[in-house]
Amino acid sequence: MRLSRGDVLSRAAHSRVARLATTGTDLQPHLVPVTFALIGEGRLVTAVDQKPKSTLQLRRLDTIAQNPSVCVLWDHYSDDWEQLWWVRADGQARIVTDADTRREAISALTARYRQYEQQPPLGPVIMITLSTWTGWSSAP
Amino acid sequence: MRLSRGDVLSRAAHSRVARLATTGTDLQPHLVPVTFALIGEGRLVTAVDQKPKSTLQLRRLDTIAQNPSVCVLWDHYSDDWEQLWWVRADGQARIVTDADTRREAISALTARYRQYEQQPPLGPVIMITLSTWTGWSSAP
Repeated sequence: MRLSRGDVLSRAAHSRVARLATTGTDLQPHLVPVTFALIGEGRLVTAVDQKPKSTLQLRRLDTIAQNPSVCVLWDHYSDDWEQLWWVRADGQARIVTDADTRREAISALTARYRQYEQQPPLGPVIMITLSTWTGWSSAP
Repeated sequence: MRLSRGDVLSRAAHSRVARLATTGTDLQPHLVPVTFALIGEGRLVTAVDQKPKSTLQLRRLDTIAQNPSVCVLWDHYSDDWEQLWWVRADGQARIVTDADTRREAISALTARYRQYEQQPPLGPVIMITLSTWTGWSSAP
């Protein structure tokens, strides 16, 4: 039931959306769905894009500035409980400030989402260094 | 784009899965997908059930004991970005200890998931009092 490292990475890499949890020093967790790209096995990038929101200075950026520890989840739900799985990774997040790393991240995101080809994300890029990976599947 | 209170509640209530973020005093967020039931507009219940796991004493229970502040997310992803939406609620969680509340929670869960009819959850029940609700949709 516990997924192998290869299986965990593959399921995450083939997912289209992830959920990102951050927590500020007030200990209030904050959750958002994110589009993302994995760079190698160890890094995840996501960007504040132009999907409508009230501001580009989002709470996730504030909480990451306060506390870099984050958690990322990928999962599949089905009413057939033989088909359930999830993959989770803990990591350390930072806002990308150098131009080369930003370019690498935007390029990885654009390769995954056709919407970014026409309109690359303009907002801050978050880079997460993923450490502990775990995964579970209800199918043997 | 910001969803009305009624729409937020309706989308959450009609979802089959939610993602629960907890954070211990170590400031490391922890994420799990959960089956759930809403009781009225203000409470969410979820239970540790018999889906295979290594122990019924899970990390989410430890973190809630350390810090009751949690965040719950429901969302829909589609490669058509006109179809995206998410709903989020912050809340305060506690492990249910009295028998009447446990019975009410198990009954609400069993009414939503047929798997629980044959095998009601045996592990601890988490009750979350939801406060701040927010929601967003890409469709107007």
